[in-house]
Amino acid sequence: MTISKKLALSFFVSLNLLTITNSIAQKTKSKTSKKEPVKSTLLSYEKYIDENNDAHLKEYLELVSIPSISSIPEHKADVAKAADWIVSKLKSLGMTAQTLPTGGHPMVSGSWDKAVGKPTVLIYAHYDVQPVKESEWNIPPFSPKVMDGKIFGRGSSDDKSGVMISLFAIETFLKTDGKLPVNVKVIFEGEEEMGSLNFNSTLEKNKDLFKADFALNADGDMYNEATPSILMSLRGSATMEFNIKTANTDAHSGQFGGKTPNSAVAMSQIIASLFTKEGNVAVEGFYDKVIPATLKEKEMIRKIPYDKTEDMHLLGTTAEVGDATFLPLERLWNRPTLEIIGLQSGYTAPEGHSNIIPGSAMARITCRLVSNQTGPEINALIVKHINKNLPAGATVTYKLGQGFAKPMKFLDDTKEYRYVAAALNEIYGKQPIQIGTGGSIGSLVSIKENLGIYAYSLGFELPDERWHSANEFFRISSIRKGILTYCYYLQHLADEESKLKK
Amino acid sequence: MTISKKLALSFFVSLNLLTITNSIAQKTKSKTSKKEPVKSTLLSYEKYIDENNDAHLKEYLELVSIPSISSIPEHKADVAKAADWIVSKLKSLGMTAQTLPTGGHPMVSGSWDKAVGKPTVLIYAHYDVQPVKESEWNIPPFSPKVMDGKIFGRGSSDDKSGVMISLFAIETFLKTDGKLPVNVKVIFEGEEEMGSLNFNSTLEKNKDLFKADFALNADGDMYNEATPSILMSLRGSATMEFNIKTANTDAHSGQFGGKTPNSAVAMSQIIASLFTKEGNVAVEGFYDKVIPATLKEKEMIRKIPYDKTEDMHLLGTTAEVGDATFLPLERLWNRPTLEIIGLQSGYTAPEGHSNIIPGSAMARITCRLVSNQTGPEINALIVKHINKNLPAGATVTYKLGQGFAKPMKFLDDTKEYRYVAAALNEIYGKQPIQIGTGGSIGSLVSIKENLGIYAYSLGFELPDERWHSANEFFRISSIRKGILTYCYYLQHLADEESKLKK
Repeated sequence: MTISKKLALSFFVSLNLLTITNSIAQKTKSKTSKKEPVKSTLLSYEKYIDENNDAHLKEYLELVSIPSISSIPEHKADVAKAADWIVSKLKSLGMTAQTLPTGGHPMVSGSWDKAVGKPTVLIYAHYDVQPVKESEWNIPPFSPKVMDGKIFGRGSSDDKSGVMISLFAIETFLKTDGKLPVNVKVIFEGEEEMGSLNFNSTLEKNKDLFKADFALNADGDMYNEATPSILMSLRGSATMEFNIKTANTDAHSGQFGGKTPNSAVAMSQIIASLFTKEGNVAVEGFYDKVIPATLKEKEMIRKIPYDKTEDMHLLGTTAEVGDATFLPLERLWNRPTLEIIGLQSGYTAPEGHSNIIPGSAMARITCRLVSNQTGPEINALIVKHINKNLPAGATVTYKLGQGFAKPMKFLDDTKEYRYVAAALNEIYGKQPIQIGTGGSIGSLVSIKENLGIYAYSLGFELPDERWHSANEFFRISSIRKGILTYCYYLQHLADEESKLKK
Repeated sequence: MTISKKLALSFFVSLNLLTITNSIAQKTKSKTSKKEPVKSTLLSYEKYIDENNDAHLKEYLELVSIPSISSIPEHKADVAKAADWIVSKLKSLGMTAQTLPTGGHPMVSGSWDKAVGKPTVLIYAHYDVQPVKESEWNIPPFSPKVMDGKIFGRGSSDDKSGVMISLFAIETFLKTDGKLPVNVKVIFEGEEEMGSLNFNSTLEKNKDLFKADFALNADGDMYNEATPSILMSLRGSATMEFNIKTANTDAHSGQFGGKTPNSAVAMSQIIASLFTKEGNVAVEGFYDKVIPATLKEKEMIRKIPYDKTEDMHLLGTTAEVGDATFLPLERLWNRPTLEIIGLQSGYTAPEGHSNIIPGSAMARITCRLVSNQTGPEINALIVKHINKNLPAGATVTYKLGQGFAKPMKFLDDTKEYRYVAAALNEIYGKQPIQIGTGGSIGSLVSIKENLGIYAYSLGFELPDERWHSANEFFRISSIRKGILTYCYYLQHLADEESKLKK
């Protein structure tokens, strides 16, 4: 991977930590930084990071160039290749590392346990990526390219940024001090983008391997470039695919049109029936297990700067939709959704024209879930609805998704929360805001359930970075900021936990 | 192309004409055949046909193996190749032949004009074919294969059967007698499957070249294997494609789900709005120019044996749909339709899973038209409907089809009709029934408008031969039957016209 010299240079520009924190502090007019031990130590880490920018970028691009699309079987070897790449990297740092079989794609486990008597921090990320619609990309999605201070490529943000930033932070300590301030374990998943099918069972079987006192989720995002944030809630998810069949074959639209059912029409009628005029989900019982937002949650949402037009500008939408009795962020974080994520029937190649009545139609659904909703229950309600609303002449078959993520909430009156907040405050020069997300990370639920710890999100993806879409990118500046935040977090946690022991 | 010997032999089985007509006559208990001059002449043609079965089949497969898909630009050279193949064949028979430029795909013109003082018969067929969904075929669609007395391959029935049968009939006369009983011209189109975009203008420019007294349409079908039929009406057609856009890009369903419009849902709502609960088209004004069927037409329909279950068995449908106040064949032949022929949105590859809110959705529509409906008018009504029913946040763009076919009706009190009927009666041993079709052949309208003659259909496709669908086939037995019918028709027409002159 050759990177243009100019762009590499722009990445190389060396700012020392004080410059960063001071400039942010000036901008945000937050309190001036006090001289703390952790901060002076950070100067040496910062030097290391800046001296190794070029090597880091090279490695980052290496990992992004592996097409580890977990949901497409043809990419099985690529997913394994990415896992092996990470294991090699971990070993090169002096960590013990291995891939664990899961029944599906491997899980990567890494550990450094030489901080005797110190707590252990577990870092979660995922190295698998979403599929691509290659025609919509400006570059080949797995030939990552650095342009305008950004790394373009599938997974560059979601979530190879989480993998690389945490690896670079570990490297920084080990190469600078020869040790980490705490014990560190990593758990990097290869099936997040297909619903974390085997994560829970693998974690359950390897509880000891991943035992830890604290956990971080590196698959997280900041509210925007200047505003650090901590994730307080995740939605769950459920997926399904269904096929509407009206005939064994496509039929000539002249020869049969007027007496033969049309699967594309039947499918459209079914999809239309899933929604009310107000934009809510019309499936009976869909909202039954939704618990209304608490006053505190509503208050949190009201405090967050939310610019509808900015959001619309990002996607190029011309309207914001959904039930207006809820605030937009409330709909996004605290209300469930049903989305059609794929729809196909008949002849749809860009060129050519086939005058047929399609015999079958396919649709895929993803629901985002909240409160006590569960994937299997929601899928069953949708199946019931479709069966009941099937037009004459249509039959239906289902492929119910097997990977479900549960919704999850986090607490803010814990030291776990405060350690993350302190690191963000230090690097960004202001206290993080609390946010929710409309997305799902089932693995965090599994970590809580199997290890008894909350994996607070500490990730540096940004909402405009086109996760799951064409031309995904990650800001190069976030790499440096991310490594420094992780360094501060680990050192600060070590210091604070030592004080508590005394 | 190697044809298995066994199958070639089954095609080779020689039945003389008397055997055919007698056996059909016996089955149908029609009047025993009288000794006519035309019939004894036919015996020598029949001998030629049977002796050349193998060579004919070889040529037939050659033409079917050329992927002349007119609507896909990548196949432009293939369409030209098919045209050149036919021109070579015509020339090898001793006809003058050429390809005519049309602005699109070439038109093939052929002529034999040495029957001085005799009338001229123009034969229409088309050599282009529909696109293929290759995954649904049991064989590669352009590697035609003979199985079970059938030729499988795209275009084997629609309409390379029309091209080959008419060519073989001409060949039979020229190789047997050294002449044809009348002057014969052929006009073979290369753009029928894309709406005959340039047929009318090309014909208009070449009126003299195609001037004729009678015309036949070889792109026709028989009601079933035992029941000859003459086409009395064609529906017209209009096509369009439209795109619903809700965002500039697909969006993460978690990150945006709950406030961002979904194009697949918007599209489904629009499509659902196009139909009434009864299955009629809900577009305002859609039926305004439909003239109700005459009593004679209704009577014609009632007389036709129509087995709903047979039709449903053919396609594997479980219900017959449409407005039950009209008979099924009335809906098919005398009522207009609106079909969704293609529908696509989001990530729909068979494997992989992309949790996105699709930013755009595409649908293609084909309408079949009757009476005084015109394509541009109908498309305009649909555009108006969609614009009016656009959900919030959705914008729409249209690609209106440029190839429209007008509806057309034929008369049965003409000698043109009687010559066709006589030939079918002779070969099938019974009078043809009168049928309509739900399909469209705009070229026949152009022939009427430019040359002033009705092109009566004389084609041997059969309704179960999967025109436009996967695994299209043509019965080998229909080739022989078809050639003989054409031979009888041309000879009989020559004889009758001579009598009229006397």
